[in-house]
Amino acid sequence: GLRSLAAARFLRRRAMNESWNFTPIGHIRSPFREKFGIPRQSGLVRTATAELVLRPPHDRPESLRGLEAFSHLWLLFVFHAARGGARRTVRPPRLGGNTRLGVFATRSPFRPNPIGLSVVELAGIEHHAGRTVLRLRGIDLLDGTPILDIKPYVPYADSLPQARGGFADSPPDARLQVVFDEAVEQRLRDEGEEGARLRALIEDVIAPDPRPAYRQDETPGREYAMRLGDHDVRWRVNEAGIAQVISRTALPPAEGEIS
Amino acid sequence: GLRSLAAARFLRRRAMNESWNFTPIGHIRSPFREKFGIPRQSGLVRTATAELVLRPPHDRPESLRGLEAFSHLWLLFVFHAARGGARRTVRPPRLGGNTRLGVFATRSPFRPNPIGLSVVELAGIEHHAGRTVLRLRGIDLLDGTPILDIKPYVPYADSLPQARGGFADSPPDARLQVVFDEAVEQRLRDEGEEGARLRALIEDVIAPDPRPAYRQDETPGREYAMRLGDHDVRWRVNEAGIAQVISRTALPPAEGEIS
Repeated sequence: GLRSLAAARFLRRRAMNESWNFTPIGHIRSPFREKFGIPRQSGLVRTATAELVLRPPHDRPESLRGLEAFSHLWLLFVFHAARGGARRTVRPPRLGGNTRLGVFATRSPFRPNPIGLSVVELAGIEHHAGRTVLRLRGIDLLDGTPILDIKPYVPYADSLPQARGGFADSPPDARLQVVFDEAVEQRLRDEGEEGARLRALIEDVIAPDPRPAYRQDETPGREYAMRLGDHDVRWRVNEAGIAQVISRTALPPAEGEIS
Repeated sequence: GLRSLAAARFLRRRAMNESWNFTPIGHIRSPFREKFGIPRQSGLVRTATAELVLRPPHDRPESLRGLEAFSHLWLLFVFHAARGGARRTVRPPRLGGNTRLGVFATRSPFRPNPIGLSVVELAGIEHHAGRTVLRLRGIDLLDGTPILDIKPYVPYADSLPQARGGFADSPPDARLQVVFDEAVEQRLRDEGEEGARLRALIEDVIAPDPRPAYRQDETPGREYAMRLGDHDVRWRVNEAGIAQVISRTALPPAEGEIS
């Protein structure tokens, strides 16, 4: 009818091959060097710390003036590892990977415009030797993620505790108890504060059970490897359903990477 | 030292003139045809309704499957009217326009990458005559705003009522009482439901006092004009500090516009 004719004309008027080009203002340095183990939302793993290294000219102190008064930030970022992977429907891990939902009903990386949105805790701002770095907590971002924008989290506008959250209405249950084999535990203890931080990160990353859903009912004992920072971490789920960290090896920084 | 050298090498490695190109998935049809009067955050004016008209191929029902289970959505959009206006510091209206803050400490449109973020209420999804339209409430977007992405609002991850909100820690006080001159009131009443909706919108848009801060201490009586949908609305603040709506005129749709 008239209404759909109006909509069609409206779209034609707007459809002038309009597109927008954006350049990162900085990049993330995070312990997550691969997708396996990355928390499924920001804020779930507070020990997941990272740095946002700003690029000139966005690293000037005045661009950030006043940001320190906010406890949390929004990061708008590019899902750079999902390039070319746009899909119309996806199967959220949260639903066991069996149910297809429209991509716009999920936070999947495989979006028409692969822009991500994460809220992170601001732990500090460092201006140092001409560089500007934001220290962040509770991140869910791959190392090297390009950042397009930083915005302050404004609780009166952004916090809607009464919102209905569809299939993701409550946080996932942390299901796995995590224990460390004695040799692993001992070496982490020997490494003092650094070791304690790594131990907490390993525990927090494994506890929500990062295994794909179709693996979770498999025979116990299968070994999983994950890279966290410059560490190779191996673990398995034993017959009692407890995650056992069986080895942790320091790796040389990967080709071209700075840890 | 070593740390800043590492940071420099990290940046060089990433600085390959990387940039990203995005095409809108749809556009907003909103009553806000000009900046004056637009709510300063989303959610402040629930009567501010709008439509998001999706563009092919993003208008297929399967792309939205499951979205109806969420009460609120994030819209990522382009500040299309701020093109070319990136600034390092801005003066938030909230602070009376006198204090300069870094652009990243504000939600200003004048950002290096002019991407905006608003949370809106999802009032309905309509598939109709081959078109897909999302009906939205509580918007703060200019008519014609290009939308880059829709994401579900996930309260367990996105809602942080305890966050510290810097200079914007609480909603702005609605300061103005709004009264309608009898002739304006009468015509709105004659228009039934449509008139009642327009009356509520006029009231809700004026109540937070959209005047620039430097005008607010001026001699009372100055007339303000705002366009809301296809209506020209005139008002002034009288000596008693009450906003008086003095006229409302229906306008023909603007050149090339479909109302």
